[in-house]
Amino acid sequence: MKYGVIGTGAIGGYYGARLAHSGQEVHFLLHSDYEHVRQHGLRVLSPQGNFHLSQPHIYKDARDMPQCDVVLVGLKTTNNHLLAQLLPPLLHSRTLVLLIQNGIGVEADVQQMFPGLWLAAGLAFICSAKTEPGVVNHQFYGSLNIGNYSCTDSKLIDQLLDELHAADIEAKSLEYEKARWRKAVWNMPYNGMTVALNCQTRDLMTQPDSRRLIYEQMLEVCNAATALGVQGVDEAFAQKMMQMTDDMVPYSPSMRLDWDFHRPMEIQYLYTRPLQMARQAGCPMPRLEMLEAELRFMEAQKTS
Amino acid sequence: MKYGVIGTGAIGGYYGARLAHSGQEVHFLLHSDYEHVRQHGLRVLSPQGNFHLSQPHIYKDARDMPQCDVVLVGLKTTNNHLLAQLLPPLLHSRTLVLLIQNGIGVEADVQQMFPGLWLAAGLAFICSAKTEPGVVNHQFYGSLNIGNYSCTDSKLIDQLLDELHAADIEAKSLEYEKARWRKAVWNMPYNGMTVALNCQTRDLMTQPDSRRLIYEQMLEVCNAATALGVQGVDEAFAQKMMQMTDDMVPYSPSMRLDWDFHRPMEIQYLYTRPLQMARQAGCPMPRLEMLEAELRFMEAQKTS
Repeated sequence: MKYGVIGTGAIGGYYGARLAHSGQEVHFLLHSDYEHVRQHGLRVLSPQGNFHLSQPHIYKDARDMPQCDVVLVGLKTTNNHLLAQLLPPLLHSRTLVLLIQNGIGVEADVQQMFPGLWLAAGLAFICSAKTEPGVVNHQFYGSLNIGNYSCTDSKLIDQLLDELHAADIEAKSLEYEKARWRKAVWNMPYNGMTVALNCQTRDLMTQPDSRRLIYEQMLEVCNAATALGVQGVDEAFAQKMMQMTDDMVPYSPSMRLDWDFHRPMEIQYLYTRPLQMARQAGCPMPRLEMLEAELRFMEAQKTS
Repeated sequence: MKYGVIGTGAIGGYYGARLAHSGQEVHFLLHSDYEHVRQHGLRVLSPQGNFHLSQPHIYKDARDMPQCDVVLVGLKTTNNHLLAQLLPPLLHSRTLVLLIQNGIGVEADVQQMFPGLWLAAGLAFICSAKTEPGVVNHQFYGSLNIGNYSCTDSKLIDQLLDELHAADIEAKSLEYEKARWRKAVWNMPYNGMTVALNCQTRDLMTQPDSRRLIYEQMLEVCNAATALGVQGVDEAFAQKMMQMTDDMVPYSPSMRLDWDFHRPMEIQYLYTRPLQMARQAGCPMPRLEMLEAELRFMEAQKTS
């Protein structure tokens, strides 16, 4: 299959490069790194082995890109308005667009922009960062769960999973709603709290009051998901997320990195949308609503 | 009457000095400022007119102080364990101790230390600060509400009110529970939030998300107070507190000053105790519980 990558950063760059390294045809849209990658190629540092693409297919304008069978979107959701311009050149009538993005409600909004488009959620469980131009530093984990949102060709999803496996990427298919809400159980507490309290995951797990708060926030997400009819987002899963975070190295989630590097935070899809849905289902999340307010306050103070 | 002041700072120093200036006999316990005040006296800067006590009755050891009819306690609640040593020398069988302190549950705990003692809450509505040794800088407001907790001699309270009035202090008597919980409607949101978001009251009122959050937190306090059977702590009162804060100059509440000056924060009485009482009454305050956790986390990080 022919692959396109929009947003060649820590996420899109990693999965795209791995697919290309395995022999797939991958077309990368680049922005600030274009000239550097044209001269030096794309490098991935990884515990699974480093590798280098010396002459990847790269573009600085989406209008020059070919139509693709699968498009990986690795943009920050704060840039999703750009998809209206960036996506159309890459689409044919059976293109699958995989939104490897954070939060709840992303697919619904992109579907509104492109009503007939086949969409799936990509849920990356990975620690990786673009540490310098043209270099993706993959630190650990790396699995990619796929939640089909509106693709009616299940064989296409199966083929994508096969080719991801062939590229040494752990990947599986999950029920869409369950996949997004399970990710939210981890994302909603840790992303915002590491910003609000200027710390890393380990600090939150070590201090007893913040640890209890994190768990209460996880339960808020579980209760909301259950009220919304999503199965399997329960207390047992929350406990698993606590255990997993205990087992992780001290970690700065993406929102903390966005804040530190003065990029806009993904408040809309990580907080506002799921909070709205929970309220509409009669199951508000007061602690996470408070966290959203704190983050919006911080964002406003930063820019004022 | 004979007055004693324990904790001659921004609060105890202000009210004690004003009483002394009006001609009352006031005995001040001093700590770090003792030598300075011995040489230079005690000075109050105030919009009601500056004044100076050249030779106040001062002590560096409570054991040297005389028995008093009324003792004003202006200590931070984080130092209340010291009262076990500091209070006894000042007490006779009919002494009234006025705890001019923040939070909920202070009187109950001091009463446990001194079962027969007459206690009242002093609710200071004042902006004042000790800006240098021996100088109390009174900025604005200054009224003192008194909520009788366990004094069985109502004439003593009346006399105290009379003498406060004679000392140019606006003072009145309020029902104890109502007075403490009304103060909590303002104290619980603003004290912690100005610390958590590193800002002043005005910032919280200006940004729409934090403004909504503050109001939701006020309503949590109102609901808890109502569940505990306290009358008159309702939405109308919360709206009045919002209006009053809108009308105030940008302000740093005492907890924010404690945090800035590396003093311990009064988390116990401002948050932990009222939160416990609310939970026991079946009416928890989730946003303020979260705020307590954030403050405890910050305090723990500071000292670790």
